[in-house]
Amino acid sequence: MPEMSGSSEVGAVVLLSGGLDSSTVLAEAVRAGRRCHALSFRYGQRHDFELEAAVAVAGHLGVAEHKILDIDLRAFGASALTDDIEVPKDSVDDAGIPVTYVPARNTIFLSFALAYAEVRGAGEIWLGVNAIDYSGYPDCRPEYIEAFERMANLATRDGVEGRGVTLRAPLQELGKGAIVTRALELGVPLAATHSCYDPAGNGAPCERCDACILRARGFTEAGVEDPALPGH
Amino acid sequence: MPEMSGSSEVGAVVLLSGGLDSSTVLAEAVRAGRRCHALSFRYGQRHDFELEAAVAVAGHLGVAEHKILDIDLRAFGASALTDDIEVPKDSVDDAGIPVTYVPARNTIFLSFALAYAEVRGAGEIWLGVNAIDYSGYPDCRPEYIEAFERMANLATRDGVEGRGVTLRAPLQELGKGAIVTRALELGVPLAATHSCYDPAGNGAPCERCDACILRARGFTEAGVEDPALPGH
Repeated sequence: MPEMSGSSEVGAVVLLSGGLDSSTVLAEAVRAGRRCHALSFRYGQRHDFELEAAVAVAGHLGVAEHKILDIDLRAFGASALTDDIEVPKDSVDDAGIPVTYVPARNTIFLSFALAYAEVRGAGEIWLGVNAIDYSGYPDCRPEYIEAFERMANLATRDGVEGRGVTLRAPLQELGKGAIVTRALELGVPLAATHSCYDPAGNGAPCERCDACILRARGFTEAGVEDPALPGH
Repeated sequence: MPEMSGSSEVGAVVLLSGGLDSSTVLAEAVRAGRRCHALSFRYGQRHDFELEAAVAVAGHLGVAEHKILDIDLRAFGASALTDDIEVPKDSVDDAGIPVTYVPARNTIFLSFALAYAEVRGAGEIWLGVNAIDYSGYPDCRPEYIEAFERMANLATRDGVEGRGVTLRAPLQELGKGAIVTRALELGVPLAATHSCYDPAGNGAPCERCDACILRARGFTEAGVEDPALPGH
């Protein structure tokens, strides 16, 4: 008997910051044939370059829908990404939890993704967490992702009625070099992505914050130049 | 050896909608000697009477802080509490999930509470879920609350560093009559609370939606009149 078509397309909510990792995850979901609903947040970041990148990447890769939600993480303070705390430069802090950690950020983002998935009938949530390069963030670890999925399937009507949601973190075990290589294979518009925590006024990456240093390391490992750097 | 004082006060984030249940929970937390940080949300409700009630209740009971966050649950649609779907009247739907169910609402609220708790160093999150009268909402069940707590303690710096968060749901097993009785014992300003899903323009409860019917049932069971009703 032939497979049913039409209704067989699986819907996916994809958390999209506009950086290298989440853009690669969106490309994976598109490649896997998912009907993609990209979800980005304006959460009091120091700048809007990430969101501009997210819009460009979502448009390039072709999503069914892209929503940008306003949420106020600054209401609680306490992160160099949203406050006046200085973004650390010239040292990737591999030990402990970085000052750029935003309390419960992934939990909040995933909670909105869960609502979005239920409303759109999407059975998957994809996200770009990465246990290797970001081991300092507790909410990037596999055990956290598994616990969120378990909670999510007790939280919603879909979960109760047996149409649970699955979390997909395809970069979980990849190093930054492997992510860059995969991004190139998938046709991610790397020049449009934005990773820097503390860009110049024109959006140029600082090349000194953790995110810039890890990204540069990835491109070096992959043996290619970063098309998002000035002069490329 | 005498107990240490001063730093021994336990901080609690309390989800406060301004209704009977959450107001009673806040009173329990205050009675238990917690340093209370009340948290309310402007999430696209049909009206602001709930938030006015929350402000009045928090002020009356004496909290350390009360934050009201704006979040846009309407972005995803699909609930009679935030959309143009009609609020059902004159029938408490005890079977299945009510149309007033907002996808992942408690998960989103608790995620913000988790961020707030971490930033304030609060070791507890208190909420007014109630498994008996609201069995139709999946995210009010004890197994959901337990799964959220487990996830939360994998999500945050505090959890990783051994200062985990505990969820407290003191109304979990109480019927509405017992909640009214307890609210009276604790001195909850019941006249200031607001439960109705679909109030009149002056804020008067409709007395016909699920929330009004359950509330009226509680006051009847407790043998007292509801001071929030018109004419009281």
